[in-house]
Amino acid sequence: MYRERIRLNSLHDKVMSAEEAAALIQDGMTVGMSGFTRAGEAKAVPQALAERAKKSPLKITLMTGASLGNDLDKQLTEAGVLARRMPFQVDSTLRKAINAGEVMFIDQHLSETVEQLRNNQLKLPDIAVIEAVAITEQGHIVPTTSVGNSASFAIFAKQVIVEINLAHNPNLEGLHDIYIPTYRPTRTPIPLVKVDDRIGSTAIPIPAEKIVAIVITNKPDSPSTVSEPDSETDGIAFHLINFLKAEVEAGRMTNKLGPLQAGIGNIANAVMCGLIDSPFEDLTMYSEVLQDSTFDLIDAGKMSFASGSSITLSERRNSDVFGNLERYKDKLVLRPQEISNHPEVVRRLGIIGINTALEFDIYGNVNSTHVCGTRMMNGIGGSGDFARNAHLAIFVTKSIAKAGAISSVVPMVSHVDHTEHDVDILVTEQGLADLRGLAPRERARVIIDNCVHPDFREALNDYFAKACAIGGHTPHILREALSWHINLEETGKMLP
Amino acid sequence: MYRERIRLNSLHDKVMSAEEAAALIQDGMTVGMSGFTRAGEAKAVPQALAERAKKSPLKITLMTGASLGNDLDKQLTEAGVLARRMPFQVDSTLRKAINAGEVMFIDQHLSETVEQLRNNQLKLPDIAVIEAVAITEQGHIVPTTSVGNSASFAIFAKQVIVEINLAHNPNLEGLHDIYIPTYRPTRTPIPLVKVDDRIGSTAIPIPAEKIVAIVITNKPDSPSTVSEPDSETDGIAFHLINFLKAEVEAGRMTNKLGPLQAGIGNIANAVMCGLIDSPFEDLTMYSEVLQDSTFDLIDAGKMSFASGSSITLSERRNSDVFGNLERYKDKLVLRPQEISNHPEVVRRLGIIGINTALEFDIYGNVNSTHVCGTRMMNGIGGSGDFARNAHLAIFVTKSIAKAGAISSVVPMVSHVDHTEHDVDILVTEQGLADLRGLAPRERARVIIDNCVHPDFREALNDYFAKACAIGGHTPHILREALSWHINLEETGKMLP
Repeated sequence: MYRERIRLNSLHDKVMSAEEAAALIQDGMTVGMSGFTRAGEAKAVPQALAERAKKSPLKITLMTGASLGNDLDKQLTEAGVLARRMPFQVDSTLRKAINAGEVMFIDQHLSETVEQLRNNQLKLPDIAVIEAVAITEQGHIVPTTSVGNSASFAIFAKQVIVEINLAHNPNLEGLHDIYIPTYRPTRTPIPLVKVDDRIGSTAIPIPAEKIVAIVITNKPDSPSTVSEPDSETDGIAFHLINFLKAEVEAGRMTNKLGPLQAGIGNIANAVMCGLIDSPFEDLTMYSEVLQDSTFDLIDAGKMSFASGSSITLSERRNSDVFGNLERYKDKLVLRPQEISNHPEVVRRLGIIGINTALEFDIYGNVNSTHVCGTRMMNGIGGSGDFARNAHLAIFVTKSIAKAGAISSVVPMVSHVDHTEHDVDILVTEQGLADLRGLAPRERARVIIDNCVHPDFREALNDYFAKACAIGGHTPHILREALSWHINLEETGKMLP
Repeated sequence: MYRERIRLNSLHDKVMSAEEAAALIQDGMTVGMSGFTRAGEAKAVPQALAERAKKSPLKITLMTGASLGNDLDKQLTEAGVLARRMPFQVDSTLRKAINAGEVMFIDQHLSETVEQLRNNQLKLPDIAVIEAVAITEQGHIVPTTSVGNSASFAIFAKQVIVEINLAHNPNLEGLHDIYIPTYRPTRTPIPLVKVDDRIGSTAIPIPAEKIVAIVITNKPDSPSTVSEPDSETDGIAFHLINFLKAEVEAGRMTNKLGPLQAGIGNIANAVMCGLIDSPFEDLTMYSEVLQDSTFDLIDAGKMSFASGSSITLSERRNSDVFGNLERYKDKLVLRPQEISNHPEVVRRLGIIGINTALEFDIYGNVNSTHVCGTRMMNGIGGSGDFARNAHLAIFVTKSIAKAGAISSVVPMVSHVDHTEHDVDILVTEQGLADLRGLAPRERARVIIDNCVHPDFREALNDYFAKACAIGGHTPHILREALSWHINLEETGKMLP
């Protein structure tokens, strides 16, 4: 059965076991693997590599698109394989190793990794491991449920291992649009001017002789871990949709809105779900990951097209979407993450970017990554690619965490991923702060009045008033600015 | 003499005094004025406005390109005219008013102001005041030594006041290239693929009937305040040029380098001067402001073309350049700051961005704006436009300030303008830190070893070692992270 998926006959003798393919990966190598938001990662070779490392230790630098599924980052960490990891992860075992300083994690804007590779600013991958539904007559690779950085990894690597995964619907072929920017100094504009433009090829074009191994697998992607909306996420969706309605009424956008980008996770997914019952029509997405809500919106006739770099679905939605792919295929495209997140395209299209904050401060600075300024959660992902260049840079979070021990709105964030210059709108279940055109003191007023949980409002008002009495464009009391985080570390809660 | 500068005869009867023109500006208005890095600002009308406000108070929102010369921000501040000011300033009197909370200052990426206006996210200017060398037969405005935001201000405003400044060489006409991005959702790529491409018109195209007043002036731009290189700025230039040589040797760029961007100020200017004696050839600039060093490089045969949004020269260089403009004219272009700083173009061209940091921390976060996290210095300017999208995002600063009371390298910056995700290279006179592809703990090692002044190295090593003992991806001791700034505020120096 797999032979018809390898349409270049000369490659049939490259089929081997995962163990044999993994043996091509040697200690000290840089390896580029497919996989983006738990979708389309190579599955058998990294597992075989982890098994082998238990007996015969080795270390590699692992680059992916974004996060891997099937506990691969866990297995690779436990086997001690990861010396360096970039540009994103979400695994709790790997997270512990990163925070212990055992794995060097390079937390990058997702559009930038392959740009840095192209410019030889990062070490090029020695070998790429790419999941595919097929190899074409030309030896080109047809990706599965994500594109991520796979195309550039395959182009840059000296050797390519392909995993043909029979669990994926072969009808995925045709969904992808592989466009690679030309080299500087003769680079030309990315010719994408509409969300549904196709500007590249449907397979990754590499010389067939670079494919040194083909492994046959039959294992599904991990389902997404998104949970159902709750009253807080519904509240956030309510405030945000009311704001978007007001933007339409003010003539700042049409009822079609701009192309939507939503970060992965419960809150962004809940906001997108909220659009099903909204008055908006003919919506589009230009995002990284397409989640359940994308397909709910398409089914509801609310969304006409969605562009992403991966499709990550819940168990419930998975067989329904991939089993009926023809129903969606003309409304979808999957692009390299360099293109799905490209500053040039994000600015041109006028994207509404909705991303999750870990915390934000009264002046509008956002922390997306570091608990108490020190411990990495996941990584910045694409949020910076979108926020800096979006038409609207929106950050959402619940106003409190840990049963009220933590306020998500603080005097000063303990780490900055998105500066005051880049953040337009902040939303919690308490309300929405529109920061556009406001000076820092005005932002503080709007944020405290609208976004803060009542249990923390008085304390923030006190801080702000005392800071203003001292003065400054952005009033702070340095002795108290991080005191909420210090309290949290020392007592388990931000306020006594 | 001025009549030949107003080539549309029907506009001749719009000539009036500055006082009469200033009377068109009313209390509560939003006013967009020309001016970028002390070049090409409207001179007579704002001064008349300040005079009038002393007798008859009024408040306006003032938007410009960037900083104004001729003490105009000082005069307007002292007269109480400024309720709101954006997107940049460098005046010490205005700075005091901003830090006292008397003027609301909106500190923006310089490429974004007119984008937000175009999308109605900021209030459109009621009136624009634009300095010009001429008005064409069509009633179009030919700017002087800067373009800045002038074109979009004139397009968006209901009324336009033009100041024809006879002090400027009329031969400036032809130097400008006015390109305005089309509206979304049908925006097309910016068709600029080489530094010297001309993609627009040489004058600002507005309907002639919008010109409601013309004021004739004869007053030069303020000279730049750049001082001569000193041993520290020479040291910074030395390290940076050695780094660029190594990049060429490593094959990451040619001997022509990439297009250079240099922020305004002594250090960036000194670095550019250092290139005169470098082995690089056929250099180009794609920058905001063209300073003395640009013309020194052209004269030395080292630079073949320079694109900017303004020309700001010292007294020494001013008459020489503008008196011999024909010598430079085919090597220069002035663009709207939206285009000189546009993320799309910056990423496409692969710019080497060199900007000045106020301070940076051991993990590579940069503060460009706030003294001790609270008091605004000038503003972020274009540094973010370039750093996020540059091929190389380089920040430079002297390692110490105030005779050694202050270290420019600190445990944690007190304000973040450029995050760890965006900073590639840090340089002080002590040395250079190449952060590309490094995890935070690795960055700390490289920064402390290379950039820190010896007087502060041991203290930073202690902090880093203690923080690493606690752990975390980005190890910090929150109780001590801002202690250097607290010491500075309380004792006048960062370390006891």
